[in-house]
Amino acid sequence: MVEFQSKIKTIEWVGTFSRMVDQTKFPYEFSFVDIKSGDDMFDAIRTMIVRGAPAIGVAGAHGIVLYAQELQAKNLSREDFVKALLEKADYMATSRPTAVNLMWAVEKQKEVIKNSTSDIDGLVEELRQNGVKLEKEDVEINKKIGDYGAEVVPKGATILTHCNAGALATVGYGTALGVVRSAYAKDNTVQVFADETRPRQQGARITTLELTMDGIPTTLITDGMCSYFMKKGMIDMVCVGADRIAANGDAANKIGTYTVAIAAKYHNVPFYVAAPLSTIDTSIASGDEIVIEERSREEVTHINGKIICAPEVNVINPGFDVTPAELITGIITEVGILRPDYKKSIAEAFKK
Amino acid sequence: MVEFQSKIKTIEWVGTFSRMVDQTKFPYEFSFVDIKSGDDMFDAIRTMIVRGAPAIGVAGAHGIVLYAQELQAKNLSREDFVKALLEKADYMATSRPTAVNLMWAVEKQKEVIKNSTSDIDGLVEELRQNGVKLEKEDVEINKKIGDYGAEVVPKGATILTHCNAGALATVGYGTALGVVRSAYAKDNTVQVFADETRPRQQGARITTLELTMDGIPTTLITDGMCSYFMKKGMIDMVCVGADRIAANGDAANKIGTYTVAIAAKYHNVPFYVAAPLSTIDTSIASGDEIVIEERSREEVTHINGKIICAPEVNVINPGFDVTPAELITGIITEVGILRPDYKKSIAEAFKK
Repeated sequence: MVEFQSKIKTIEWVGTFSRMVDQTKFPYEFSFVDIKSGDDMFDAIRTMIVRGAPAIGVAGAHGIVLYAQELQAKNLSREDFVKALLEKADYMATSRPTAVNLMWAVEKQKEVIKNSTSDIDGLVEELRQNGVKLEKEDVEINKKIGDYGAEVVPKGATILTHCNAGALATVGYGTALGVVRSAYAKDNTVQVFADETRPRQQGARITTLELTMDGIPTTLITDGMCSYFMKKGMIDMVCVGADRIAANGDAANKIGTYTVAIAAKYHNVPFYVAAPLSTIDTSIASGDEIVIEERSREEVTHINGKIICAPEVNVINPGFDVTPAELITGIITEVGILRPDYKKSIAEAFKK
Repeated sequence: MVEFQSKIKTIEWVGTFSRMVDQTKFPYEFSFVDIKSGDDMFDAIRTMIVRGAPAIGVAGAHGIVLYAQELQAKNLSREDFVKALLEKADYMATSRPTAVNLMWAVEKQKEVIKNSTSDIDGLVEELRQNGVKLEKEDVEINKKIGDYGAEVVPKGATILTHCNAGALATVGYGTALGVVRSAYAKDNTVQVFADETRPRQQGARITTLELTMDGIPTTLITDGMCSYFMKKGMIDMVCVGADRIAANGDAANKIGTYTVAIAAKYHNVPFYVAAPLSTIDTSIASGDEIVIEERSREEVTHINGKIICAPEVNVINPGFDVTPAELITGIITEVGILRPDYKKSIAEAFKK
């Protein structure tokens, strides 16, 4: 397997702080911001300076290290330190509600806290090492996802994607765009159609940026156009990420994904979800239990700070939707491609 | 039937020129522009100062009057006048390619030119009168469409619409939004969900503006959200306009309509097209023959003059798509609601 080298490192632990690409500035600036306190990390996740389910998982893990460092400076008893830190960890998990990777990464850090026998300094160091480990593992997992996914990408395929499940949604490489990168490394006639992804335009602002940085041919379309190109036979497969997948395979992802999935079904275009096992929440039976984040009206009514509609209009702005398992051809994970019946294949994947 | 009074008059012949709402300035300004030459009318249609299939039909008819007035000043022989004017009329028909109402209105004026026995001054006056007649008829036709459509709007319905097929897409009242107005006049618990309609955001810029001006409750959503709200049972019917309908019922409308139609089918939500008979092009057997206008890359890459993506990204920007007849519950016209089999019901409608 030829390994595709992406130039992008979205989030990285550097000594005593977390450095991340500031994703609110795209496409005008590709700059980095250093996050040096737990509260700043909470805000960075909430305001989407860092976004993408796997990336905010790692961000959450880093954030707990930052809280640990702050509490370390306070000369607390070990018991009080642990109690305060577990509270901060639970708080960090509330910075965004839909992506389960955040809760998963927070749990991983809480396990370190609960299982450690070290003193405070030792425990902080263990959390730091675990934060870096989760960061490194994320890239490894993405590359495995990419390689499994590349096997189902037809020769010369045009892959439609929605939102950004790329290097910039993860630590690097990407999930859905990891599949694209691995496929492109084998076959440079593969290309991408990127949905703009209103309201926050992650497809336009982020996906087109990261793919063109890596030299992968990319066409930007608006969200309503997907069916037009599917009908013309110009889309060979859809590949998207996920923020939470239920035990039955129902997958929450960026608002608009469900509409693309319905269009894909109507045109018999294969629809794949690419996500690490950490995105699968086996504690929920179906997508009906997934909490959908409601975001601000300004995301819909304003673009680049300018209003685009009648100011008094009503707005509802769900950040995510749930694609039912029946519309999903396969879930591409680091242990292989899961196929229907997902209840069975997901349960089996977790036994490995 | 209670008649709903819309405050909006989109285009109007005033003495020697055509006055229209400038639709490129929404939602920042609600202003009028006076079009005083044929070439200015051509540009006003091309640059979408006036848009909406029925409105550009009337605009085209007015434009031919403007050309006639210009040629009238040139002291041509009647024969040369007629020859030059017919050429100008054919040119006017090319200002936009998809909406058939433009070609239909141009034909109506050409019939006046060909059938007239008057001298040049008399002929120009006949064209002027016919331009005003088409303008007045459009509002009457819309009210008939609205009243027929209101009969299939359930009590307290939420109607999803895409783009703007409203008073501002016609001379006044609207086709799809004419149905909304007539339904709202009978039942003020009816409300509208308006798709933003990228790339040109006619739903956000125009539909929310005209509906809130008329006091009709309106919720703005992004194009990808339609399925989310359908699944929640929050959409009772879809009603859209059309730019050209083939003899088999296939309907071209603003890009993104086809995606909404597929989502409606998946959720068993009735999907109606509201359009005057002048939108039906019985000369084409199916939607495959409809020319789809390709518009500029800047409509996709820029919003309010600011770039939203990687500058080097590829773009394809079809202005319209075709919803196949199998997805359409009914076509609401001024002679009643046409139902499948459309080949039959359309042929019968033209016999009346």
